Amino acid sequence: MDKYFVDLENIDIAKYIKIAQHIKKLIDDNLIEDGEKLPSIRNLSKLLKVNNVTIVSAYKKLESEGYAIQKVGSGTYAKRKEIAVNLKKRYGEVVRKISSEEMKKYIDFSGEAACSDVFPISSFKDVINKVLDRDGMEALAYQEALGYEGLRKSIDEFFWDNKIGKDNILIVSGAQQGIDIASKALINVNDNVVVEKPTYGGALTVFKWRRSNIYEIELEKDGMDLNKLEKLAKKNKIRCVYIMSYFQNPTGISYSIEKKRRLLNMAEIYDFYIIEDDYLSELIYNNNEYVSFKSIDYNDRVIYIKSFSKIFLPGIRLGYMICPKIFKESIQNSKVNTDIATSSLMQRALDLYIKEGMWKEYINVLNKVYKDRYMFMKEYLFQLKEYIEFYSPGGGLHFYIKLKGTKVNCMNLFYRCKREGVLITPGIIFYKNPEEGLNYFRMGFSQVGEEEIKKGIDIIKHILEKD
Amino acid sequence: MDKYFVDLENIDIAKYIKIAQHIKKLIDDNLIEDGEKLPSIRNLSKLLKVNNVTIVSAYKKLESEGYAIQKVGSGTYAKRKEIAVNLKKRYGEVVRKISSEEMKKYIDFSGEAACSDVFPISSFKDVINKVLDRDGMEALAYQEALGYEGLRKSIDEFFWDNKIGKDNILIVSGAQQGIDIASKALINVNDNVVVEKPTYGGALTVFKWRRSNIYEIELEKDGMDLNKLEKLAKKNKIRCVYIMSYFQNPTGISYSIEKKRRLLNMAEIYDFYIIEDDYLSELIYNNNEYVSFKSIDYNDRVIYIKSFSKIFLPGIRLGYMICPKIFKESIQNSKVNTDIATSSLMQRALDLYIKEGMWKEYINVLNKVYKDRYMFMKEYLFQLKEYIEFYSPGGGLHFYIKLKGTKVNCMNLFYRCKREGVLITPGIIFYKNPEEGLNYFRMGFSQVGEEEIKKGIDIIKHILEKD
Repeated sequence: MDKYFVDLENIDIAKYIKIAQHIKKLIDDNLIEDGEKLPSIRNLSKLLKVNNVTIVSAYKKLESEGYAIQKVGSGTYAKRKEIAVNLKKRYGEVVRKISSEEMKKYIDFSGEAACSDVFPISSFKDVINKVLDRDGMEALAYQEALGYEGLRKSIDEFFWDNKIGKDNILIVSGAQQGIDIASKALINVNDNVVVEKPTYGGALTVFKWRRSNIYEIELEKDGMDLNKLEKLAKKNKIRCVYIMSYFQNPTGISYSIEKKRRLLNMAEIYDFYIIEDDYLSELIYNNNEYVSFKSIDYNDRVIYIKSFSKIFLPGIRLGYMICPKIFKESIQNSKVNTDIATSSLMQRALDLYIKEGMWKEYINVLNKVYKDRYMFMKEYLFQLKEYIEFYSPGGGLHFYIKLKGTKVNCMNLFYRCKREGVLITPGIIFYKNPEEGLNYFRMGFSQVGEEEIKKGIDIIKHILEKD
Repeated sequence: MDKYFVDLENIDIAKYIKIAQHIKKLIDDNLIEDGEKLPSIRNLSKLLKVNNVTIVSAYKKLESEGYAIQKVGSGTYAKRKEIAVNLKKRYGEVVRKISSEEMKKYIDFSGEAACSDVFPISSFKDVINKVLDRDGMEALAYQEALGYEGLRKSIDEFFWDNKIGKDNILIVSGAQQGIDIASKALINVNDNVVVEKPTYGGALTVFKWRRSNIYEIELEKDGMDLNKLEKLAKKNKIRCVYIMSYFQNPTGISYSIEKKRRLLNMAEIYDFYIIEDDYLSELIYNNNEYVSFKSIDYNDRVIYIKSFSKIFLPGIRLGYMICPKIFKESIQNSKVNTDIATSSLMQRALDLYIKEGMWKEYINVLNKVYKDRYMFMKEYLFQLKEYIEFYSPGGGLHFYIKLKGTKVNCMNLFYRCKREGVLITPGIIFYKNPEEGLNYFRMGFSQVGEEEIKKGIDIIKHILEKD
């Protein structure tokens, strides 16, 4: 009979989540007012017939999501959603309403995609025609589940010195899909997932879909605060840690080799996995060496995700993953059940593009163009020095900027900039609790030339001066 | 204080699931043997300190997943996994090991994609080149979140008489992705989801990912048994019903107009949504009229999903969705966070293909080719009449076949066929409990000509005769 015993204690996790959800809804529906005192832990645990600890957990959850404030010695107070979650929602609505036609009229510091003006479209057209002539219908049929074999071979040869093996590479439709299918294979309800703080909003959404518990850990200049992570790992079973190894989105921070090694060690000691989103490592302007987590992953702890869309062609939706052996099958299944396979013609075109040396050539051109813009924007941002401070990432496509000495927060700035034809990315989308990002914004330079950078920053300066 | 009350009774749902999972694992790990009697409800509820009802639910769940059998007046008995879930797993492993090169050597009745021999590749090449010349880099850049406006307009005009509106159409990367993102927007943990029995395995997986409770309801000759559905709806809050309106996968069954109307009515009365996977309605061989659920969806209850990959080009991964207003925003968000956007060049190519009349022409050719094959296979299947029975769907790309008067089940048949160079699809993948599909298999004719159909069926006959 003993074997039938199952620990149902953890079910209380579900209870505290349910209670927090209920209170969130009350706040959202205005049935609890902003600043209203929530019931004492004792009273609420009596009412709901649960342990005190369950209520404490529920209140902590509310707090971490910006729905409550704890005042020492006084209790917990509700906080209106407008200030919290709705910020993201409203921002999303505003952005979605901009059509691609309208978008062209803006000075766009919010874009994340590579600029299109330097792309050699005619040689890409040649590549597509060569593929169609060479492969005929094959080019338009289903691929093997892992993706087009030729492309997998090329990736292994050109990016990994043939050390990975083509059968350990899975082609996906961009990094966002990589994060989604890795999560489906890896993360279950109530698993603990750690992210950098701040982090990419698209990853936060995916982890929320899996109903995981998300922990944010602050970034230092050389990567995540690993002491904090270790403290957390000692108390809680961590399932995975999501990180961007180079020029993190949004901060631009890259991991030092020491932190890479320590994080990989910790993954082995505390038995968790690292999802490495190799975000923009092709764009290194300060001659630093490129060492991915995956390349020194001796314990097979890293799920490596690489997008080609960011750097190459945003409209082609291609990327790839390398997975630890134990997840290989489940991640492959997850891909099939997410969208069967990735567009095959584009896989073949990219393959030929890499093989004919055009990829390398193009990345060199991009590095030159972007480095110039990077230097220019870095210089010109000093126009705003009274109102901002920022870190120079030494690569990538953007700066993450902190507002200081001004009452303007990033949402005020976003709306005012938009009225004057300038788009920036407010910091709120990079935090679980959007309020923590109110003093930050991101400025990218991939969609703007020098003239636009100047004009855009002048407009921002004017807005900040007025206040 | 009243408003703080939250019903935590439902948490017991989580408990019964946890108990069932625990017992499943014991069975999988051989710690409970095949045929071993499970503890009595009374004893187990005592041990785990839960209500009797919780144990009853856990045992019912085990039964529905093929892990237990209830014997009236005697109790509940464990059932070995080999016979149940592992069937699907092993089948998946076998199929995945077949490379696309090897696949060409098989007589492939398992394929679901349109045949490639009749596709006019040179005109498609022309279309791609026209798009690249016309749009330049635009063709390779990000689209608006909804997808390329031109294609959305064409879909509205050519398939919906301009009744939907381009802004109510969302381009997705095939139907599988449509199901995935609809689920993310619609289905929460423990929501009740109803599917046809049998149904498409890729949908079952997606609904499982959402941790929903899946109910299977038998199909009749004119669609789902709606009396059973109504009974269920009276007792349980249903979130959504997933159906294929024409030539259902795998059974080939289509809904009568009466059932369509009644199901739409029920959706309104019992407040659920219908996910309509418009699977193969372009291929109607018996001159029946085409009326989608969406076209008579006066209460905005239908999430319509259409794939272009199935019928057009499997390698291009394109499809679209039409959503009820209340889900429009969440489904759009769900798409962005799943893979940002769908490959843009292919959207533009398909758009031009439709506009220049080539789509219509191609569908007409396909209908001719497939109707001939359909008739031929239907006739030739009578060679097997001693061992099988089947339903003639009057359209689509396959027959669903029941084994009778033989001890061979579909898995024996699958392995033996494979050894002799023939691929069929075993019925097990279409049921929650794979065992229920052991007497069925699916035979498609999209990848095989008349000669191959003959040869393949002769081989199957030989196998069945030997037994």
